[in-house]
Amino acid sequence: MTSIATNVPSALDLSHHINTRSRSRHPSPLKDILQFMAYEGMISLSGGLPHPSLFPIRQLSFTALNSSGKSGELIEIELSDKKEDQDPLAKFLQYGNCKGNDTLRNWCLDFTANILRPAYNDFEVLLHPGNTNAWSKVVALLCEEGEHILCEAVTYPSAQALWIPEGYFAAPVAMDGQGIRDDALEDVLSTWEETHPGKRRPHVLYLVSVGSNPSGVTMGAERRKKIYDLAVKYGKYLRALDFIIVEDDPYFFIQFPDYEINAKTVAAMVSNEEFVTSLAPSFLHFDFQGRVIRLDSFSKTLAPGMRLGYFVANPIFIERLLRATEVETQDPSGPSQAIVLSLLEKWTMGGYLEWLQNLRLQYMRRRDCMIDAFSQHFQLVPAAKSGIPDAFGIVAFLLHSDGQGTTPIFSFVPPSGGMFIWVNFYLSKNPRFKQLQADSSIADPEDKFSGELWRQWIDAKVLLVPGWYYHPWQGEDKKSTKARAATPETSNFRFSYSMPSEEEIQQGVERFASVVKHSWEL
Amino acid sequence: MTSIATNVPSALDLSHHINTRSRSRHPSPLKDILQFMAYEGMISLSGGLPHPSLFPIRQLSFTALNSSGKSGELIEIELSDKKEDQDPLAKFLQYGNCKGNDTLRNWCLDFTANILRPAYNDFEVLLHPGNTNAWSKVVALLCEEGEHILCEAVTYPSAQALWIPEGYFAAPVAMDGQGIRDDALEDVLSTWEETHPGKRRPHVLYLVSVGSNPSGVTMGAERRKKIYDLAVKYGKYLRALDFIIVEDDPYFFIQFPDYEINAKTVAAMVSNEEFVTSLAPSFLHFDFQGRVIRLDSFSKTLAPGMRLGYFVANPIFIERLLRATEVETQDPSGPSQAIVLSLLEKWTMGGYLEWLQNLRLQYMRRRDCMIDAFSQHFQLVPAAKSGIPDAFGIVAFLLHSDGQGTTPIFSFVPPSGGMFIWVNFYLSKNPRFKQLQADSSIADPEDKFSGELWRQWIDAKVLLVPGWYYHPWQGEDKKSTKARAATPETSNFRFSYSMPSEEEIQQGVERFASVVKHSWEL
Repeated sequence: MTSIATNVPSALDLSHHINTRSRSRHPSPLKDILQFMAYEGMISLSGGLPHPSLFPIRQLSFTALNSSGKSGELIEIELSDKKEDQDPLAKFLQYGNCKGNDTLRNWCLDFTANILRPAYNDFEVLLHPGNTNAWSKVVALLCEEGEHILCEAVTYPSAQALWIPEGYFAAPVAMDGQGIRDDALEDVLSTWEETHPGKRRPHVLYLVSVGSNPSGVTMGAERRKKIYDLAVKYGKYLRALDFIIVEDDPYFFIQFPDYEINAKTVAAMVSNEEFVTSLAPSFLHFDFQGRVIRLDSFSKTLAPGMRLGYFVANPIFIERLLRATEVETQDPSGPSQAIVLSLLEKWTMGGYLEWLQNLRLQYMRRRDCMIDAFSQHFQLVPAAKSGIPDAFGIVAFLLHSDGQGTTPIFSFVPPSGGMFIWVNFYLSKNPRFKQLQADSSIADPEDKFSGELWRQWIDAKVLLVPGWYYHPWQGEDKKSTKARAATPETSNFRFSYSMPSEEEIQQGVERFASVVKHSWEL
Repeated sequence: MTSIATNVPSALDLSHHINTRSRSRHPSPLKDILQFMAYEGMISLSGGLPHPSLFPIRQLSFTALNSSGKSGELIEIELSDKKEDQDPLAKFLQYGNCKGNDTLRNWCLDFTANILRPAYNDFEVLLHPGNTNAWSKVVALLCEEGEHILCEAVTYPSAQALWIPEGYFAAPVAMDGQGIRDDALEDVLSTWEETHPGKRRPHVLYLVSVGSNPSGVTMGAERRKKIYDLAVKYGKYLRALDFIIVEDDPYFFIQFPDYEINAKTVAAMVSNEEFVTSLAPSFLHFDFQGRVIRLDSFSKTLAPGMRLGYFVANPIFIERLLRATEVETQDPSGPSQAIVLSLLEKWTMGGYLEWLQNLRLQYMRRRDCMIDAFSQHFQLVPAAKSGIPDAFGIVAFLLHSDGQGTTPIFSFVPPSGGMFIWVNFYLSKNPRFKQLQADSSIADPEDKFSGELWRQWIDAKVLLVPGWYYHPWQGEDKKSTKARAATPETSNFRFSYSMPSEEEIQQGVERFASVVKHSWEL
């Protein structure tokens, strides 16, 4: 069933990236004893497991949408201890071996091999209880206190909230409409000794490369290849200065066609093959050395409450992650594993791809609805034709009240994946901002203005997420707009289109636009 | 519903126990935004949650034993989004607030208040995905690298496997038939500066005080009170030298009447009140300052695969544990929470107590079966009448083949809780051991002999857990029997009676005894 490519190499030994703490983990001695339990005729008086006859749950069943996603079409799935064709329910209710259920793990391995097609042959899968936990285990695997983690110029706050108390710092890399720029990354690495004297060169790159949170951008194949080549290049010429790419990828299958202004594209289902081919590939697809740790999750594709996902990585990293799993979490929830496995088996792999196609079209419609709503209140112009230097995607202008000329208000990259639109405001023409800028007692006018604007939206009953939530943590001395070397006279906010209805999106954008008009006095 | 005692004090501020890393955790900024979402009429374009209409699972149902535990009597429970009298299913499938479902959390709080009756009034509950994860969060809350953790003289290996790579050491405390001795604990604390010059005095006591793993012993009320008083005494007279008690208590409700040699006690159900009163109380019951962190779990009472349990602790600790939960795990599995909550609600609290009573009787029968099997092959004598100094519980003798006299082979404390019997062998009369002892080239004859004996049992197809798995980690230089200051000429093994059938127990003990007879040449 699995189509692991046979013409690709095995992983390199990249164990020099593993930190002291992780190296010193030993397998639990109790796990050693398992080999003897398997001896024929052995009577084990060793295990401390509760007896399954004393588990109260005897049968579990659920109703689910079929893989077409149509609301009327339901399927029934039942798990018990009687059925011969599946793992019995009691197995999911008992302690596991910390790797996760074998059948489900193999399903994820097959799926990865067939759909993501890694460029090495001995990658492994380990289940985990969600990408939040997975990232915490990766940090505990690779990072040493005081070191810097390479990340996007705006990065996911919960990932950062983990690393700040551990004593790590962000090493942000400049982005464009495809995320991290390879030239900027090489620049950070090649000038590291001068820019950060005495600090260890970063060896971990953390990124959300599809529908990034918050930037909303998706990285194309070519850019991925260039970044992967950098990781290898540094490994090849500079001993142990290579880096590991941690791909936190919950939105991978929520990729969709580009937004075209006023195009009113009708989303259509295509063949699964066409769907898979249309997706920007995972970093794994370029990974011929085993230096990508992929964090995969069912949170966005099935349900977050499952708290279920999986690592894909080389065997050396997976073994150390398993050691951490044994003492930190053990297996993910049994009911979650049972439900997800039996649903995937019922749907089949083709059905799951059909489900994912439909899912991404649903989110695409929501994206289109939000950008269409922008176009009701602003004049949207492709960045290339906007005359605004360094703008990516689309620039939104407001017409002057006298009809004479326009003012650029914000720009954004229309997402081709995920759930977010990251809006970059141009403040230089805003009267209130100019007033704050002229006041020498105000240290960070961009920050102050953004706070005021945010509260004005709240007063108008529309809630956005302020851009400052996503600033990479570089230490107490690098918090202001200037100290962060952020572009002056700009400010960012994040929009999300995943939860509101079409009506709410339209009304919310109307409130948003009306505050903007008032603030810019246009 | 909750009967929190009103005549008891509030928790002290014990924040001096929180370590640097935990202190530096900030609430995720994204959580701050929640307050604005609640504004009337607010349109939120801020949340990044997937849309619940895109969750495939629409209805979940299960069949369970009723609270009597009788195998024929089943109940059906259904969860959907339509029922008015419960949290909708979609709520369990969505991201939570990291505290766990409110209804379930309140259930656990009520249960703790009513059954465990803490001696302070502002204790709080936080759900977690199992005690393994809970302990890892507590270590990350309280401990600083290089410090010592007070623990039982033989301790749970998985708890230790976590702390060794983090750079902590065990400070083991001598035990008797009730677990840690208060006089030994005071001795460790009062002589700390002399015995461990330059090392921080331990401030965390980790213990499994009911049916301890591996020792099988349960600590009575009086001992608990004395140990609690020590924690307070050190806080009162010596500033910031008090300690925190971490009560890892998965077997709390699996407490049963003492074993009586040849008594053939028939286990009987009693009233729930009588049942609860019969249990050794939790440390919480003596905790009038909020210095106990209790790790509670449904693993042994419902099913380990649920990966669900809860902390009970003072508000300051719970708040910091919540900060860690936000970045390390988020909520426990939604399906697990949904199943456990709906089962507990269906059973009612009284029904759950009935279930627990039945459960403990099942394990009691298994305990009795194993000790009865011992009595088939050995002469069991109460320690007090055995003439063996320092023996606790029961001593097992073998009759000499000539019928003239007996040799003491092992002793054990018949467990009054949990799943384990911890057997302490007397090696001084064993010919092979004497041979090893006489060989000056053998550094640790106890260790070598134990390894040989263990392999002989494996060859005879009976598997026990060697005692060395449970030795507290005190550093590389304290591994041998001598260096650990362990009792010479003794050796330990752990028996478990939770999984094997009665027949397997009888046959396993027979194999065990036959190897012993051969080894002791009796």
